[in-house]
Amino acid sequence: MSQLPDWAALSALELARKGLPAMVTCPPLRTVDDLGLVCESLQVTGSYKVRAVCHLLNQRRSRLPPGGIALASSGNFAVALAWAGRHYGVPVTAVMMRRSHPWKVERVRAWGGRVVLCGDSTEERTASLQALTEQGVQIVDHLTDPQVLVGHATLGLDMACARPRTVVVPASTGGLLAATALALKQIDPSVRVVGVQPAGANAMVESFRKGHLTRVDEVATECDALTANRPGELPFQLALDWVDDMVEVSEEAVREAVTYLVEEAKLVVEPGGAAGLAACRSGQIPHQDGTWVVLSGGNLAPARLGHWLMEKQTLAR
Amino acid sequence: MSQLPDWAALSALELARKGLPAMVTCPPLRTVDDLGLVCESLQVTGSYKVRAVCHLLNQRRSRLPPGGIALASSGNFAVALAWAGRHYGVPVTAVMMRRSHPWKVERVRAWGGRVVLCGDSTEERTASLQALTEQGVQIVDHLTDPQVLVGHATLGLDMACARPRTVVVPASTGGLLAATALALKQIDPSVRVVGVQPAGANAMVESFRKGHLTRVDEVATECDALTANRPGELPFQLALDWVDDMVEVSEEAVREAVTYLVEEAKLVVEPGGAAGLAACRSGQIPHQDGTWVVLSGGNLAPARLGHWLMEKQTLAR
Repeated sequence: MSQLPDWAALSALELARKGLPAMVTCPPLRTVDDLGLVCESLQVTGSYKVRAVCHLLNQRRSRLPPGGIALASSGNFAVALAWAGRHYGVPVTAVMMRRSHPWKVERVRAWGGRVVLCGDSTEERTASLQALTEQGVQIVDHLTDPQVLVGHATLGLDMACARPRTVVVPASTGGLLAATALALKQIDPSVRVVGVQPAGANAMVESFRKGHLTRVDEVATECDALTANRPGELPFQLALDWVDDMVEVSEEAVREAVTYLVEEAKLVVEPGGAAGLAACRSGQIPHQDGTWVVLSGGNLAPARLGHWLMEKQTLAR
Repeated sequence: MSQLPDWAALSALELARKGLPAMVTCPPLRTVDDLGLVCESLQVTGSYKVRAVCHLLNQRRSRLPPGGIALASSGNFAVALAWAGRHYGVPVTAVMMRRSHPWKVERVRAWGGRVVLCGDSTEERTASLQALTEQGVQIVDHLTDPQVLVGHATLGLDMACARPRTVVVPASTGGLLAATALALKQIDPSVRVVGVQPAGANAMVESFRKGHLTRVDEVATECDALTANRPGELPFQLALDWVDDMVEVSEEAVREAVTYLVEEAKLVVEPGGAAGLAACRSGQIPHQDGTWVVLSGGNLAPARLGHWLMEKQTLAR
C-alpha cells in the first residue's frame, strides 16, 4: 500500500467534516429489509456532492477572484455548487454538457448559479473552462483536486456510527468510492468496501480488474450521474489500495432498485444513486448483516420516475 | 381547560417513548424551502401508526389471549399492527373495509398479519370485530383507547428538539393531532398547533368550528388515510383544549404537495400524509419561521404516484 498523503489522514478528514454546514452532515441512516440505506439522496441539494463543494468553498472563499469559482459537471456537482454558492455568498458557474438532463440544468439556475452549456466532448468542455479562466474565474478540477476527495470522505465519517461490515458505493470517476473507503478503513480496516457501476459505463470496473487506468469508448446507461468514460487518476490509485471489489449492474436491476425504493423505502433516488442497491438486490453482492448501501443522489426528473412507476405496474398486470 | 388525566401527563408520554423500539423513534427532521418536514413517512411501516401499535403491544403482550389482538383500520394502522405483531411475536388481525386500497391490504399480509375484509359501513365493521371477539381475539378500539393517543404523542416528543413555533398535522379522527398538541404544549405552551383535513372529509374541522362533535354524511377525497366521517370523541375533546386551529385543503393542493415532495424533498408521501404541507403551500397556513409539518405517512401505491407525476408533466407542457 502506498504511503498515505497528509491531506488524506483521518484527522484532516475529521477537520473537514467539522467545517461543513450542520444541515449537510448526518444523512438519515435507515434499515429496510435488513439492508442499511445511507440516504444522501435526502441531502439539501439531493446528492452527496454538496459536501465536497462546501469544503472547497470553505477553504477558498477568503481568496477567490471577483468572478468566483467554476467547475464542469454533468449535473449533481453543478447543483451542489449552486447551493453552496448561495450559502456562502460566492458567484459560481457550472459548465454543463448539452447532454446534461435539462431538469438538472434548471436546478442549477433555480439556486442562482450561472450555467455555461458546452458540447458533449471533453475537448469542448476544456475549451469552455479555458474561456472562463480568461474571464477571471477560478476553476476547480474535481478529477484532480484532492480536496474534493476530502469533502467526499466526510460521508464515510458520517456512516461510521452504523458500524458497517460491508459498504456499497456507486462509482463514476470513483471519487466517492475511494474517499468513503479512505475514511471508513482508517477507522476500521476490516470494513469491506465495494464499488458499483452500470455495465454500460464500467470504466472503473475495467480499470480495477486490469490494474491500470482504462478508458471505455462508449457509454450507454440511464444512470446519468455515472457516465464517466474513465476513472479519475487519483481516485483510481486510491481505489487500488483501499477498495475491495468492483461489480457491474444491468439497467434492469437499476430500474428495479429505483421503483423498490419508492415502494418500500418511500425514497426518491435517481438511477445512478440506486446502483449500489441494484447490486445487492440482483445478487451481485451477497446479502450479509451489516451491509450499508450509499444512495448517493435523488435528482431524478419527476416525469421519468412517473414513467418507470407506470411501466412497472403495466408489467405486473 | 379540562383537568389533564394521568395517562396524558408528560411523564407518562415520555415513559411510553422510552418503551418504543429504537427504530420507531426519531424520524428524520428536514428543512426544504425554509419549511420543516417531520418525515414519519420514513417510519418502518411507512406511517406514524406504528408508534401507537408498539406502545399497545408493549403494554398488553404479557397478558394477551392466544388469538392475539385485532383492530379495524382503513390501512396504515393495519400495516403497523402487522409489523408490530411480527416484531413482538404476537398474532394480529386487521379488519379492513373492502374500500381499503388493495396495496395496503397486501402490505398487511406481507408483514404476516391476518386480514378480515368487511363491508364499507361502520355496522359491518362492528359485526366483524364482534365475530373476532367470539373467536377469543382481543379487540383494540383505537377511537376510544387513550393509550393509542399516548403512542401517537411520542411523535410530539420526537419533534420537540426542533423547537417548533407552529406545528401542522393532518387529521382524520384527530388522534395524531390531539396527541401531538398534548405532548408539545406540555413542553412549551406557546407552540401553535394546527390541524388539516381535506375539504371533502372535514368532520373534525366542522366539529371544531361548531364546538360539538359533528358527523359528515359524505366523504370524498383521494386522501385514503383521512376518510373518517366523524372525529374520535376523546381526540375531539382534547383538540378543543389543545389545538389552536383547523383548516381545509383542496384535492388539487394535496396533489401538488405530493408531487412537490417527490421533486424537491425526494420523499414519497401519500396524499393524506401531505395534507399539512398542502395547507402551507396553498397559503391556508401563512409562511413563518419555525413551522414544522408532519408528513404522517408514505404508503402510496406506486402506480398512483406514477400517474400523478406523469399528469403533472403533461400539464406543464
